[in-house]
Amino acid sequence: MKKIKRSGRLVDMTYFLLQHPHEVISLTHFSERYQSAKSSISEDLVIVKDIFEEEGYGSLLTISGASGGVKFIPRIESKQAGLLVDEVIDSLAVPERILPGGYLYMMDLLGDPTFMQRVGRVFASILASEKIDAVLTVATKGIPLAYAVGQQLNVPVSIVRRDHLVTEGSMVSINYVSGSSKRIQTMTLARRSLAPGSRVFIVDDFMKAGGTIRGMMDLLEEFQAELVGIGVLVETVGVEERLVDEYMSITRLSEVNVRDKSIKVERGNVLDLLKEAEEE
Amino acid sequence: MKKIKRSGRLVDMTYFLLQHPHEVISLTHFSERYQSAKSSISEDLVIVKDIFEEEGYGSLLTISGASGGVKFIPRIESKQAGLLVDEVIDSLAVPERILPGGYLYMMDLLGDPTFMQRVGRVFASILASEKIDAVLTVATKGIPLAYAVGQQLNVPVSIVRRDHLVTEGSMVSINYVSGSSKRIQTMTLARRSLAPGSRVFIVDDFMKAGGTIRGMMDLLEEFQAELVGIGVLVETVGVEERLVDEYMSITRLSEVNVRDKSIKVERGNVLDLLKEAEEE
Repeated sequence: MKKIKRSGRLVDMTYFLLQHPHEVISLTHFSERYQSAKSSISEDLVIVKDIFEEEGYGSLLTISGASGGVKFIPRIESKQAGLLVDEVIDSLAVPERILPGGYLYMMDLLGDPTFMQRVGRVFASILASEKIDAVLTVATKGIPLAYAVGQQLNVPVSIVRRDHLVTEGSMVSINYVSGSSKRIQTMTLARRSLAPGSRVFIVDDFMKAGGTIRGMMDLLEEFQAELVGIGVLVETVGVEERLVDEYMSITRLSEVNVRDKSIKVERGNVLDLLKEAEEE
Repeated sequence: MKKIKRSGRLVDMTYFLLQHPHEVISLTHFSERYQSAKSSISEDLVIVKDIFEEEGYGSLLTISGASGGVKFIPRIESKQAGLLVDEVIDSLAVPERILPGGYLYMMDLLGDPTFMQRVGRVFASILASEKIDAVLTVATKGIPLAYAVGQQLNVPVSIVRRDHLVTEGSMVSINYVSGSSKRIQTMTLARRSLAPGSRVFIVDDFMKAGGTIRGMMDLLEEFQAELVGIGVLVETVGVEERLVDEYMSITRLSEVNVRDKSIKVERGNVLDLLKEAEEE
């Protein structure tokens, strides 16, 4: 890149940092890219940092030492997260969404990549200071949110399947009991798709009794992987026997009546968790 | 937002534009946000535009008129795209990827959100001047790339399924013939998940004879939707009866020998298409 002025550097740096979240970028990288002294680069970074932090886009950490530099951590601030959660609630609490069995039609929300990114940022924000190696989800509807979280944390996504496909090589299968239907089902994960010992965040769109998530937790053991956390877009309350204890939820479906077409959605626990993470 | 200097505005504007691709942002929006004169905002935008276009991040179109403003169109330039395609080739042309049936293990690539974004930018770049309302793909492995394209084009993603799930309401099903196995299969799409009359870009990870894509094309007719284009990460060459004529491919699998574990991958047609799009 040819030598450019501060104004141009700021645009380019912002672009670059957004493309490389959770990655340490050395001052040397920027200094060489813009043919500018490290002292100028440091001043640039202060400007970027101030805007990112004032506007709640995330934080810009300074890593000192030989392998030092800066690291952009995407975040969402509590207030913005509160608005987003309420937006999800308003969008979900519509009787037309109610499907037989008390499920909700959500593909329009899950199908919106920009919206998924915003929701993903809430989880990524809570997890900002955790070491995470991979996001795990189950096909099909958990995938969009899992990718959004994976993109913000800059880690790969592994997809558990309910069928056994020939095109993924050797697979690890487990049986699990679906919490709501009590039926025994099978889920599989390609042997190659999760490195042994990985620290994993599990994502799904919807959690009732938690049988599917429990299944993914059991699958993690087969990979000697470690569970860091669980995040869902919607949990249902009033479940008698929940198979999962600790998890983060964006919203809680507190009432759904298929006959009366009535529905009630509340805030999940992510806003509390976000505050805790901010105070740390 | 409080009144800030040009340097801060440039950081904030870059962030904002990247979060809102293919959206017209009025000068008034920026002018109010930064409490600055439109003339200053215009000067800021020239700086952003110059960097975006020089570095090949995309273009910043000026839309004149009452509803005017600027629109960020993410792009990748030919040279960068060439490097990316060669990177995909190097990554794919590894004997260990060969699976029974001549398929390739690709979940590691598909599972990398950042990599998918980069590949998605190639398709988004070719499609930059097309009107597109939705991206359509089939579960499971087409989803990551479909979301990457959808995010860059700022349009929703619709997911066709090979099973019939109870949690998506009424579904439209069609039968199709899998090109390679010649078996009759079923695919379904939730009635609510694609608006009638939509202009659609179809995405998949892998295309052999093209039966699955042909099925999605037939499904589009059921929704009175229009096909704008088709994009795949890998196509296989040497297929006797291809069921799809026009498509874009990142790479072509020209030789795969399960017995000898030999594999040959070439560039697909996207680089030519990108050049054509740039010359328009």
